[in-house]
Amino acid sequence: MKRQITIKDIAQKLGLSTSTVSRALKDHPDISPKTRTAVKELAALLGYRPNRIALNLRNNSTRTIGLIIPEIEHYFFSAIINGIEEIAYKNDYSVMVFQSNESYKREVLNSQAVLTNRVDGVLVSYSKETSDFSHFQKLVDNEIPVVFFDRVTDLVQADQVLADDYQGAFLAVNHLIEKGCRRIAHFAAPQNLQIGKQRLAGYHDALLKHNIPFDHNLVLLADTYEMARKAAHDILRKPNAPDGFFAVNDMSAIAIIKAAKELGKRVPEDVRVVGFENSKSAMFSDPELTTVDQFGFDLGREACQVLLRRLKDDKGDEPFRPVKKVIKTKLVVRNST
Amino acid sequence: MKRQITIKDIAQKLGLSTSTVSRALKDHPDISPKTRTAVKELAALLGYRPNRIALNLRNNSTRTIGLIIPEIEHYFFSAIINGIEEIAYKNDYSVMVFQSNESYKREVLNSQAVLTNRVDGVLVSYSKETSDFSHFQKLVDNEIPVVFFDRVTDLVQADQVLADDYQGAFLAVNHLIEKGCRRIAHFAAPQNLQIGKQRLAGYHDALLKHNIPFDHNLVLLADTYEMARKAAHDILRKPNAPDGFFAVNDMSAIAIIKAAKELGKRVPEDVRVVGFENSKSAMFSDPELTTVDQFGFDLGREACQVLLRRLKDDKGDEPFRPVKKVIKTKLVVRNST
Repeated sequence: MKRQITIKDIAQKLGLSTSTVSRALKDHPDISPKTRTAVKELAALLGYRPNRIALNLRNNSTRTIGLIIPEIEHYFFSAIINGIEEIAYKNDYSVMVFQSNESYKREVLNSQAVLTNRVDGVLVSYSKETSDFSHFQKLVDNEIPVVFFDRVTDLVQADQVLADDYQGAFLAVNHLIEKGCRRIAHFAAPQNLQIGKQRLAGYHDALLKHNIPFDHNLVLLADTYEMARKAAHDILRKPNAPDGFFAVNDMSAIAIIKAAKELGKRVPEDVRVVGFENSKSAMFSDPELTTVDQFGFDLGREACQVLLRRLKDDKGDEPFRPVKKVIKTKLVVRNST
Repeated sequence: MKRQITIKDIAQKLGLSTSTVSRALKDHPDISPKTRTAVKELAALLGYRPNRIALNLRNNSTRTIGLIIPEIEHYFFSAIINGIEEIAYKNDYSVMVFQSNESYKREVLNSQAVLTNRVDGVLVSYSKETSDFSHFQKLVDNEIPVVFFDRVTDLVQADQVLADDYQGAFLAVNHLIEKGCRRIAHFAAPQNLQIGKQRLAGYHDALLKHNIPFDHNLVLLADTYEMARKAAHDILRKPNAPDGFFAVNDMSAIAIIKAAKELGKRVPEDVRVVGFENSKSAMFSDPELTTVDQFGFDLGREACQVLLRRLKDDKGDEPFRPVKKVIKTKLVVRNST
């Protein structure tokens, strides 16, 4: 039997990297039309068969999905993991989870580990530190399908599944305004993350809709319990203190409630608070927290389904067309508003 | 170069399983002295070299540790994972996490996946459903070192790292008695788990020390938020209701506080409550929860260190001597008592 022609053979003959060849075959816009043509002509000449390769890969399947996630302690992420696993195990896949712990360096190690372990596909939510995505591009170049969820990027040609953060934030702030709040503070996430940007945009547009001027003094970076508790103490002591808070996550919202109580303010009478996530802690808090449900479990299920479809599909040499799924969020009203 | 003699060769020639041969070479007490002698004699005759094998394995190292854990959402387990990863990444190991989700079936799949992926060693806390441990024995038989943590078993020859549950429970109940409680209820975990047994024993012995009779009506199986909330409602409505609660985990303790408040009882004035774990929720609860700190992070660090020592040691054909490490717990007193 003749030896199968690989991307490596084409790369060697043309003096290109395997990554360039792989992307050229998929019509990646980063590769010049000239190179794309050269690669495709040689591939045709040598009888390179992407279908056959895909088939080989499938036959060598490890029935394992790699999952790279910033942290697993966070309720939202653990709900996502549970959703992913429900679909994976139903389809006889094991899921191996790697925690980057919000570290770029660890994430690179994790992406090497999923490559070494020849997983069938990879689900990724990247770390807060990550701005270079070449370690994920390397997976794609090695013909391992990648699906980004929650924290997504357009810099890698891969599918995306995410929550509708903008819509959730809009609902939250709109609700505070309807309850009578006029000075609403937003405790935000870093703006290099899509969720940080989208939730701020939703906050901004809800104010706009009700003709409430946007005041940048009311937007603070405070996406952890500790940061939020301190920031809430500071802002609530000022003259003209906020009468409402929209926090980027439940932990920050719970910290705001704590700080308000410590300053002798009543929630929701004096200060109304909305979180984002609908974690278990939202129900344990006193008063119970109004929050935006992100449906992490459903998001995980959807991300895994997108990946499994990718593993089943045999697209041959058709250009890759990324899928983008957006999961709607929902406001859950409780006693904190 | 002569082919390396393997355990399989010895097993075939003697008509035994590889598992029996592996255990015979390690003087496992389950294997008869007669079989042990036969195996060792043939091994010597064929020139079987366990040292060489260990060396080969090390050279083929994937620098990956497999971690099988019941659930990752639980604060205690996620703290353990963080402790394990701190040590692992410092020593250039990646950690792949498999969540059994408290399912025996999934756990067996997970143990197959770590075997397929040729990890260097495995850290295990088994599921509530697990009573047959042969899937873990199979790892040991394949010369993959296993360390059990938190939920440990003597049925597999492996190292163990666990928290001192008995001592923690004793401290908790002793504290309630010193605060004046005389009718102390215990919300317990299933008794097939060591933690369920040990914490009940600590509760029992603390009562005994203070000459308070043990009343089986005060011990209820309630180790989830939902179970505990319902059970607390029931028992607090009875005549001669408890004046103190020792819950097997923080979630159950928080549910008890919730139920007490719903019934118009004040915590700690009417009812004192102690949890077990020192999770983040313990601090978010109102009043803040007195609880036993299990030091999950330290336990994870220790478990990983035991495993790494095992990977470095080259014990040759010395019999395997399991290590057992017990991590002391500590009572953290807050406003719920």
